[in-house]
Amino acid sequence: MEETIKKIGSLDEDAMERARRRQSELTKPVGSLGVLEEISIKLAGIAGDPMPKIKEKLIITMAGDHGVVEADVSAYPSEVTSQMVNNFLTGGAAINVLARHIGARIVVVDMGVAADINEPGLIVKKIGYGTRNMVKGAAMSREDAIKAIEAGITVFEEEYEKGIEIVGTGDMGIGNTTPSSAIIAAVVGCDPKLVTGRGTGIDDISLGKKINAIKKAIEINGPFEDAIDLLSKLGGFEIAGITGVILSAASHRVPVVIDGFISGASAIVAGEIEPRSKNFIFASHKSVEIGHKVILDHLGLSPILNLNMRLGEGTGAALAMSIIEASSKILNEMKTFEEAGISEKI
Amino acid sequence: MEETIKKIGSLDEDAMERARRRQSELTKPVGSLGVLEEISIKLAGIAGDPMPKIKEKLIITMAGDHGVVEADVSAYPSEVTSQMVNNFLTGGAAINVLARHIGARIVVVDMGVAADINEPGLIVKKIGYGTRNMVKGAAMSREDAIKAIEAGITVFEEEYEKGIEIVGTGDMGIGNTTPSSAIIAAVVGCDPKLVTGRGTGIDDISLGKKINAIKKAIEINGPFEDAIDLLSKLGGFEIAGITGVILSAASHRVPVVIDGFISGASAIVAGEIEPRSKNFIFASHKSVEIGHKVILDHLGLSPILNLNMRLGEGTGAALAMSIIEASSKILNEMKTFEEAGISEKI
Repeated sequence: MEETIKKIGSLDEDAMERARRRQSELTKPVGSLGVLEEISIKLAGIAGDPMPKIKEKLIITMAGDHGVVEADVSAYPSEVTSQMVNNFLTGGAAINVLARHIGARIVVVDMGVAADINEPGLIVKKIGYGTRNMVKGAAMSREDAIKAIEAGITVFEEEYEKGIEIVGTGDMGIGNTTPSSAIIAAVVGCDPKLVTGRGTGIDDISLGKKINAIKKAIEINGPFEDAIDLLSKLGGFEIAGITGVILSAASHRVPVVIDGFISGASAIVAGEIEPRSKNFIFASHKSVEIGHKVILDHLGLSPILNLNMRLGEGTGAALAMSIIEASSKILNEMKTFEEAGISEKI
Repeated sequence: MEETIKKIGSLDEDAMERARRRQSELTKPVGSLGVLEEISIKLAGIAGDPMPKIKEKLIITMAGDHGVVEADVSAYPSEVTSQMVNNFLTGGAAINVLARHIGARIVVVDMGVAADINEPGLIVKKIGYGTRNMVKGAAMSREDAIKAIEAGITVFEEEYEKGIEIVGTGDMGIGNTTPSSAIIAAVVGCDPKLVTGRGTGIDDISLGKKINAIKKAIEINGPFEDAIDLLSKLGGFEIAGITGVILSAASHRVPVVIDGFISGASAIVAGEIEPRSKNFIFASHKSVEIGHKVILDHLGLSPILNLNMRLGEGTGAALAMSIIEASSKILNEMKTFEEAGISEKI
């Protein structure tokens, strides 16, 4: 982990300046492609290449279970986590459909599901059979949090060696909006109420229980020594794994597209560990979860899409990744005014 | 034209209800895919099929010139229209890149460019060599407006016969935000200032001239008998052509994805001619042009994307079309809870 963190650099200003200049020479009014132009310039800064190309696209979806579900914070039982992992592996979930649509590979990782899943294609990095209930104490040990981050780093490195130009993160874990809200409230220092939403779709009574569970978890686990301490006490195995993916992608200068609320919590932890990791992140969409805006503001990121989604799995990341790819093609494939022999502005 | 208008029907409520039910059975919390779910239900209503499939995608980009450019309303000279048409035909423009990205065909139509373009692949439906200056009188005759709409209908019908499941509209025409603003101001009955923006990027002085030109054009050409009268006096050949495409697509129950400001003006005219045509339209994105929000509110449509774009050509339509396609795949390819053997809500 230390090695990975040390390797995380800054955006390449020179590549960005050259990409910006090229955008102004392409056959369109300057700035008329709006966010697409901005994305392409950031891509150039990340890759250190004024004309960054995206060929291989990858979604990493990490799954884990959460002890806190015993506090009645979710509309679904924990067993749905492993059932959905099976669904990912047989291609029937939303993330499968959307990854196929954009031409991305998916890697599914068991970071800590509360059941053994023996399906071909699954990467097993199980740190435990679900976390402990954070309302009663630390969700996991500090050692396990580091192990989970390092598992995320390893997963990314193995895929990186096969060659990828962009990675999206996704999550599956019944109950995982609860630890995510807890992490955000603890890092930002706000009332948990302001960052706690309905997750899969709970009613007012469960929402009250969820907010209370988060308050209590922060109370009995705090104060926190550092980001790893906070992650271990309030986090989840898949949340820590995604933090590892983000840190590793940043260290390799690969753009990382975070999905929604849970990936956002992972990104916040990554940013607390190494602030420069934030330079390499694209925020895919604005989730319906009320705390997501707080996350994006804290990260200093604008979402590319706003489609009222709140599914997770990497679904928002997949859709945004296709727009990011389009922006790189604009930079690479459009002709300049000179190349096309077109009159410039009067 | 009359025949096409008569064929325009309503959304199929039964197909929509069945699509809505299927969305609630797919392996995700109900409503968690937000706008994607809504799009898929509307698609079902348009196609009259609870599981609508999108295979062939088409962008129709129509070009025309505008006499009103002599009033100094654009940052680029008229000759750029034909130069950009050539750019479309050789694949170097933004719309070429984005259409390739989403796997759509492009059809480029000369509806009334002020130059002869003899390039292979161009569909020539030239009604004239640019419109007349609407500040001095009608931009075109009523006959020409009808001819242009009917040319749009013909272009769509020819492509429809080859088999397409979705169509996007795009425009190219130096000066064409001016007639578009004029159309909107006249239909909505608002001060032209509120719906007139900077187009390709004009300065304050040109913006003042543009607003004055629009005011004068409405003054000397009004009052207007009907939508065709208004279109002929304030419109453009490509604007009328796109109106024809929209009407024809609606008559064949093919979803039509309108691009930005100019396609929006065309859609407003289509809606004035036959209000039910609006049922078949998706608004792709929210343009930077200030009048675009007025258009979308008038049409009762929400934009799918908000990427601060203002290029035209069909660029926003292409990006949104890919999201619409994704929504149809969600409906067709995701497993239900029952199929995947997953526990439902507690």
